[in-house]
Amino acid sequence: MKRIGITMGCPVGIGPEIILKYFQSFDKNSEFSPIVIGDVGVLRHSADHLGIELDYVEWSPGDEMPKQQIPVFAVSQLDPTLLAWGKPNRMTGMAMAAYIETAVQLVHQNVVQAITTCPISKYALQLAGFTYPGHTEMLASLTSCENFSMMIAGEKLRVTLVTIHCSFTEITQQPSVQRVHKQIGITNISLIEDFAISTPRIAVAGLNPHGGESGILGNEEETIISPAIEQARQEGIDALGPFPPDTVFYQAVQGNYDAVVCMYHDQGLIPFKLIHFHDGVNVTIGLPLVRTSVDHGTAYDIAGRGIANFESLAAAVKLANQIATNRGERYPQPFHP
Amino acid sequence: MKRIGITMGCPVGIGPEIILKYFQSFDKNSEFSPIVIGDVGVLRHSADHLGIELDYVEWSPGDEMPKQQIPVFAVSQLDPTLLAWGKPNRMTGMAMAAYIETAVQLVHQNVVQAITTCPISKYALQLAGFTYPGHTEMLASLTSCENFSMMIAGEKLRVTLVTIHCSFTEITQQPSVQRVHKQIGITNISLIEDFAISTPRIAVAGLNPHGGESGILGNEEETIISPAIEQARQEGIDALGPFPPDTVFYQAVQGNYDAVVCMYHDQGLIPFKLIHFHDGVNVTIGLPLVRTSVDHGTAYDIAGRGIANFESLAAAVKLANQIATNRGERYPQPFHP
Repeated sequence: MKRIGITMGCPVGIGPEIILKYFQSFDKNSEFSPIVIGDVGVLRHSADHLGIELDYVEWSPGDEMPKQQIPVFAVSQLDPTLLAWGKPNRMTGMAMAAYIETAVQLVHQNVVQAITTCPISKYALQLAGFTYPGHTEMLASLTSCENFSMMIAGEKLRVTLVTIHCSFTEITQQPSVQRVHKQIGITNISLIEDFAISTPRIAVAGLNPHGGESGILGNEEETIISPAIEQARQEGIDALGPFPPDTVFYQAVQGNYDAVVCMYHDQGLIPFKLIHFHDGVNVTIGLPLVRTSVDHGTAYDIAGRGIANFESLAAAVKLANQIATNRGERYPQPFHP
Repeated sequence: MKRIGITMGCPVGIGPEIILKYFQSFDKNSEFSPIVIGDVGVLRHSADHLGIELDYVEWSPGDEMPKQQIPVFAVSQLDPTLLAWGKPNRMTGMAMAAYIETAVQLVHQNVVQAITTCPISKYALQLAGFTYPGHTEMLASLTSCENFSMMIAGEKLRVTLVTIHCSFTEITQQPSVQRVHKQIGITNISLIEDFAISTPRIAVAGLNPHGGESGILGNEEETIISPAIEQARQEGIDALGPFPPDTVFYQAVQGNYDAVVCMYHDQGLIPFKLIHFHDGVNVTIGLPLVRTSVDHGTAYDIAGRGIANFESLAAAVKLANQIATNRGERYPQPFHP
């Protein structure tokens, strides 16, 4: 039975709340065991605050899995009376980073077979002295991985992104044949190894409206995207496109493609969130370990109010187990944290 | 009972086919009467070719509406033996343009109360000597209208676009406070007058991922979109935003907004076509006459093959009748074609 380590994320965001709600609804007969990597005191404080009745137990490798209580691999011991919802500080930032570092160590030692992460904030990470642009880059650095990427996955749609967090004006400066080609390749490998699809069908979206209309509305389809697809096809990858962006997602949702490679954040996220608003999962593909994440942020504005939705966390843990199962003996690959 | 004029569009595209299929399924007890503005010979030829059994009758103002046959206001008399599916020429281009000109005249004379247009191609329009960039601009010119815009409408989602047919790199050069403000205003008027929504709730999408994240990922939200929204609100329009583009469409589909003002073509069309792939309607808002259109093109690649879907046409005619009904006595406004 696989153990999935859930990092608690920012202690003053919605992480503790969605973890509590997740364990409330967790089916003990599931084929995997989730373990929280976090802080018992913070969880208890959150449960008291939200009126959630759940029992906790500190868990260490070698211990049996508790039948009723939430197993917590205790990393930090923050004083809950010093915390304020939505107000991260240096201590919460350091704790949050330590959950991630510990999670990587636990995968390395095969104590857990996959990680699901609750949200952190860049601001809190910076308070703690880390300069990573985000969660994903921190995990890549901790596993010495350079070829990684983000996939957003749901039951009906999977998208990967050639450019991610850049302003709209910067989008057209970033794609290159090499970058699009690399994205197709990394998407293909993930679909095969993580999702157990033997011959993935990958759709590649164009950049311009109507896919450029043969150059009338832009030529990136001809100069960048088509050559990258051609290169991938010569390597035996079943990549097709570039498709008009406004029709390709419908085709993918109909089951005609296993994933859509997108040129920019909103091209992929707009259709994805329309279909999977609550139950989307962020998967870091290309890493030597299995990592899924909720697809939302710390939501400081609603932290501590009891209205956070835990569906994305539930879907993320479930998918982490599926990916770890699909990867089988091949993973975790040796890596040096 | 309102009469809706359906222009046949390009005679060698899928226009004749979707018209035939539409009339095959048309409920004679409907509260409106559709009339084809086109070519009897082309329709008969298409019906023979596609194996569709339907009867036609040339209809003129003053004639009774036929009970069983398709009423056709005959504008062209093309020789079907000289036509080839998917191959427009100067004659088909001129015929296609004449259907539109005639339709405007028929609205002007109150013979029909609204127009629904089947697709034309810019290429065929150019062959006929017209320099309009498209259908909409031609109609605007014929009605001496300058303040018009495109809305794409379905049962669950309505979007309007600040920029439309430009390349991706040109998108950021076009929006201005004035342009966004104007788009909010024209959207508001259409929702009130065309859709009979007394106090429309309008969501305005941001341009950058996450809506710019307070300037970290772009500042058009702060410099352009927010001031335009503020201006509209001061005029009493219930416009809200700018919202992160990847969540606003879900909120609109949930019923929280009556329309989403979008910054570029794919921002609006990607979510719209995901929800309304077959039954979307293109509405030209701001015109002195009611004009709806199918939301697809001439589809020359499948013309004559019998596989075209007529749902968008059916939805477009139905919506044209609804808009004409909602506009009531106020329209058609006087205009000088």
